[in-house]
Amino acid sequence: MSADLTARLLTELDRLVLIDPHTHINPHAPASKTLADIMGYHYYTELAHSAGLAKSRIEEPGLGPKEKVGRLVEWLDKLDNTIQVSWLIELCQRFFGFQDDRITPKNWEALYDNAAKKMAESDWETQCLKQSGIEKVFLTNDFDDPLAGFDTERYIPCLRTDDLVFHLAKPEVRQRLAKATQIDVTNTATLKDAINKLFVHFVKNNVKACAISLPPSFTPRQPGLHEVRAPLQKALNGEAMTADESARVSEFVFWSIAECCADHKLPFDLMIGVNRRVYRDGVYQGQDLFDQRVSLIQYQELFNAFPQVTFPVSVLAQASNMELVSYAWIFPNVVTNGHWWYSNIPAHITVDTRARLQAAPRTKQIGYYSDMYKLEFAWPKFQMYRRILARVLAEDFVIDRRWTETQALDLGKQVLRGNVETIFGVK
Amino acid sequence: MSADLTARLLTELDRLVLIDPHTHINPHAPASKTLADIMGYHYYTELAHSAGLAKSRIEEPGLGPKEKVGRLVEWLDKLDNTIQVSWLIELCQRFFGFQDDRITPKNWEALYDNAAKKMAESDWETQCLKQSGIEKVFLTNDFDDPLAGFDTERYIPCLRTDDLVFHLAKPEVRQRLAKATQIDVTNTATLKDAINKLFVHFVKNNVKACAISLPPSFTPRQPGLHEVRAPLQKALNGEAMTADESARVSEFVFWSIAECCADHKLPFDLMIGVNRRVYRDGVYQGQDLFDQRVSLIQYQELFNAFPQVTFPVSVLAQASNMELVSYAWIFPNVVTNGHWWYSNIPAHITVDTRARLQAAPRTKQIGYYSDMYKLEFAWPKFQMYRRILARVLAEDFVIDRRWTETQALDLGKQVLRGNVETIFGVK
Amino acid sequence: MSADLTARLLTELDRLVLIDPHTHINPHAPASKTLADIMGYHYYTELAHSAGLAKSRIEEPGLGPKEKVGRLVEWLDKLDNTIQVSWLIELCQRFFGFQDDRITPKNWEALYDNAAKKMAESDWETQCLKQSGIEKVFLTNDFDDPLAGFDTERYIPCLRTDDLVFHLAKPEVRQRLAKATQIDVTNTATLKDAINKLFVHFVKNNVKACAISLPPSFTPRQPGLHEVRAPLQKALNGEAMTADESARVSEFVFWSIAECCADHKLPFDLMIGVNRRVYRDGVYQGQDLFDQRVSLIQYQELFNAFPQVTFPVSVLAQASNMELVSYAWIFPNVVTNGHWWYSNIPAHITVDTRARLQAAPRTKQIGYYSDMYKLEFAWPKFQMYRRILARVLAEDFVIDRRWTETQALDLGKQVLRGNVETIFGVK
Repeated sequence: MSADLTARLLTELDRLVLIDPHTHINPHAPASKTLADIMGYHYYTELAHSAGLAKSRIEEPGLGPKEKVGRLVEWLDKLDNTIQVSWLIELCQRFFGFQDDRITPKNWEALYDNAAKKMAESDWETQCLKQSGIEKVFLTNDFDDPLAGFDTERYIPCLRTDDLVFHLAKPEVRQRLAKATQIDVTNTATLKDAINKLFVHFVKNNVKACAISLPPSFTPRQPGLHEVRAPLQKALNGEAMTADESARVSEFVFWSIAECCADHKLPFDLMIGVNRRVYRDGVYQGQDLFDQRVSLIQYQELFNAFPQVTFPVSVLAQASNMELVSYAWIFPNVVTNGHWWYSNIPAHITVDTRARLQAAPRTKQIGYYSDMYKLEFAWPKFQMYRRILARVLAEDFVIDRRWTETQALDLGKQVLRGNVETIFGVK
Repeated sequence: MSADLTARLLTELDRLVLIDPHTHINPHAPASKTLADIMGYHYYTELAHSAGLAKSRIEEPGLGPKEKVGRLVEWLDKLDNTIQVSWLIELCQRFFGFQDDRITPKNWEALYDNAAKKMAESDWETQCLKQSGIEKVFLTNDFDDPLAGFDTERYIPCLRTDDLVFHLAKPEVRQRLAKATQIDVTNTATLKDAINKLFVHFVKNNVKACAISLPPSFTPRQPGLHEVRAPLQKALNGEAMTADESARVSEFVFWSIAECCADHKLPFDLMIGVNRRVYRDGVYQGQDLFDQRVSLIQYQELFNAFPQVTFPVSVLAQASNMELVSYAWIFPNVVTNGHWWYSNIPAHITVDTRARLQAAPRTKQIGYYSDMYKLEFAWPKFQMYRRILARVLAEDFVIDRRWTETQALDLGKQVLRGNVETIFGVK
Repeated sequence: MSADLTARLLTELDRLVLIDPHTHINPHAPASKTLADIMGYHYYTELAHSAGLAKSRIEEPGLGPKEKVGRLVEWLDKLDNTIQVSWLIELCQRFFGFQDDRITPKNWEALYDNAAKKMAESDWETQCLKQSGIEKVFLTNDFDDPLAGFDTERYIPCLRTDDLVFHLAKPEVRQRLAKATQIDVTNTATLKDAINKLFVHFVKNNVKACAISLPPSFTPRQPGLHEVRAPLQKALNGEAMTADESARVSEFVFWSIAECCADHKLPFDLMIGVNRRVYRDGVYQGQDLFDQRVSLIQYQELFNAFPQVTFPVSVLAQASNMELVSYAWIFPNVVTNGHWWYSNIPAHITVDTRARLQAAPRTKQIGYYSDMYKLEFAWPKFQMYRRILARVLAEDFVIDRRWTETQALDLGKQVLRGNVETIFGVK
């Protein structure tokens, strides 16, 4: 009975057309061309590498797409338990007429060819979005992205600011900033001007969020100008900096960006908790991990200082979810946002979803984003989430709290779509 | 079948009359007078504020109770997913004949009036306790509470010591202490005398526990007298103190209180992990949060030093529950105590209850306390817990471990009531 | 239906004969002789003590085995909820014809006598292994164990290195090392020689793993020789050392052991997170606890430096499981290993198993080890795990992901046995 109920709710949730509020889609090449684009997703390369496939076999210069897929397929039998591989199988079944339940050395070539044929259709991008029930897709744009040459109503810009906050000391970042803004950054004032000019450019182009990923050690604060001046000069001169000096610059840039979010009325997506390059010989995008010893208490000054800015917060460590729920329950400007990266597996999503739906206002929860690099992944990833959401709605709300199915569905639709509209101001 | 079993167990657990081992009831006004007393519970004001209701609308000077309720009701549709609002609905249904499943701008006035009428009945307090299956209620008393004018057999005193440990440097705290004890505190010896005198007064008045809430940073230790003397002089003189000096005074007062617990054979409730005033512009009692980076290892010296004192421990961060279970499993004097505050939602209670029942002696677990400010909340909060407890007993014990229903019920009754009797020495 | 499915899977998993990859079995006395050997397992003594039995009653000099059991039995009614006591009941039912569901002051003597009779049979050891479905058992050997007088094919040596890493400053440890290696350790070079000689001896005797348990504070690194020389001299001279000096020596020894693992192609079991002697007056082996504030990020240098060494990692705090899953997902040389100590209860195993099976390669997961001191415990402990595994396979794989039962069983068999063979190189 509970299973039937869940299935009924899922059917209804499936009908909803969605806006995906965080992805890494390239709007100039949003869909895949071959299975290599799909299986090149870091989840498969890093898992195959973790299971034993040499990095040099995956990242060999000049390796053709079909051969790359062939090499990866040989390792799939070691990974077929993972939910990540289930996304792959499900999308191949849905989009490419794949009939088997495993991709193997025996069946992959036919799949590769069928997929290539399908993806070669001129309207594949639109077909894929339609079959996925996705209407609009948030991007992750470099701060110097010209934002030209694509439909910003379908592919909604999001200003990603990691480079500015953490890598301003790198010459190429400063050059990109200079080129993008035509401002000669020489001090705190001109740096603020340059940042503001980026916001103006993005706002002109339908930006709906600013975003950043943050290491566990970062604690936002507004440093005194006297603390920042000297370190900033060093950064601008490309001189060596101590960890403390770097921190002052990062704090200053981060705070300035938050001020721009306030001025330009943009939500500021915080993705909290990643350590970069932990596994230094890992495959591309398969090197980052985390330290669970992080707390949202580190963000108290930020949340207090910017009541007018909405902060959709994603956390990497599952241990952080309870804090996230509690901070969203207390702070009007803190919103729960999806299930990020290592948290994005059913075991974690289930408990996180339960806690969020039980304790934070329903208006302050963004249920899910795909984080995808290619459009084909929206469907299986959202489908994983929808199944969990349907079950939690069935068990916790319809059965335990005797809600009607309609009431439960309204809640589900709100966290799946409604809140994306209201929080980011997009319809 | 599992659902039927759970329902049968729940029916039996419902019959048990309980002692509520931790509340904030005012024994001079234990029950509510209007729905404003009920909806003024910080859970509703903080959630409505979090969802967008301005603090100034909630805390407007001179705001009448009915208008306050009217303002809060407008925001309930944004919160109806929360378990906290489900407590409200359930108590209105149980006590005030409320028939709907939502409180809305259309139906709230009738509810308000019906509730007011019911609560105006002269024996409402006793009715409410009876309908709630609650016999006795632990209080949270200020250290200078005269403990007069109420029945200390029904409303059992509990000496709350936060002010002494963390705010002795405030003149009003020292004045209250001087007034309550008639002792002129000038040094460590007279401070100990004063604290002991408080205990004597409380013990005379049927006190059954001492209690304190503690920040994540606190680590109990017995400071050397030479470390305490100078900081204590500063505190007593109202001079500015460093963080280190404050810590020495807190450590000394805390340790002295633990000694009094030993001398007077009182359990010492530790509520571990709250950071006060994190959201500085939050509504009344809606400003506190936490840092999950806390460990019971911080309490090892305390637990070792006072084997004769029972420490019923509550933890705020769900991440701390595993440590709590493990420390209760090893230390004879550590007891698990309820599900505190942000941990008090079904998602967390369920996993915490499972782990506790599976791994710590059954004699060392206090299942639940309501933490309520008004009597009407005991029933829905305990009911939430009883449902979870009944399910865990059904699934983990009757089904998985083939216990008889009677055996499972005995366990349930022990954590619901029996252990409160044995641990606090109250019948 | 789900229950039937789980039962079918469990029946099949039960048929599998296992290798137990981590125990504390004494190969010269692997099985128990009386119920006192069984109930002397620290789980029962520490839980009975926690529930109120005085340490002096448990550890009284000259206490006979039967009287010891009698004393412990009096406290079992306070512990019968624990999963640990369920192991005891289940093994007594399976091995000793025990018919009741509780061991009580009334029935224990008959059980004691029946058990003693059974265990007195000359082939009890072999019977017990056979009835438990256990073929081979990994040991925990002191570094100076002669490894003689037992069948190293059945009882597989594992080199335990805690003493070397953390207690080299103790004269008896250095004496044991000198005696075992016949090397006069006077500096870093001879210390490395001695360690290597231990490995050579163990490798000759079928060792299949090196192992160590580590406190939450430990962070492996390769110290510069200039940092180690002076502290090592102090350690070798038995002079007092600062915490920093001790840390340098521990780091050096640990790193040298990791190098030997690389040289001798041995997996290095890391058991991360225990604090020793937290409860100083606790019973034997019932004094250790932990601090959940530990992170695998502390091990990044180690995992990067030794790609050729497999690290089967066990974590004590359940909060660490998500990191463990994520590190095993990214690092080829990190493998998840069982459910250690305070994590070894169904509430924690269930969520940990879910996350591991959903996100890490199936080839990199060692499902379970018994950690037992006496052979009789393998069966009930593995049985607890098998039940959970069967349920997770049923719910997450057969039902949710529509795997066939055969596919699910293959996965179960791989984590139960197959991976033990491939990871440790034992058949």
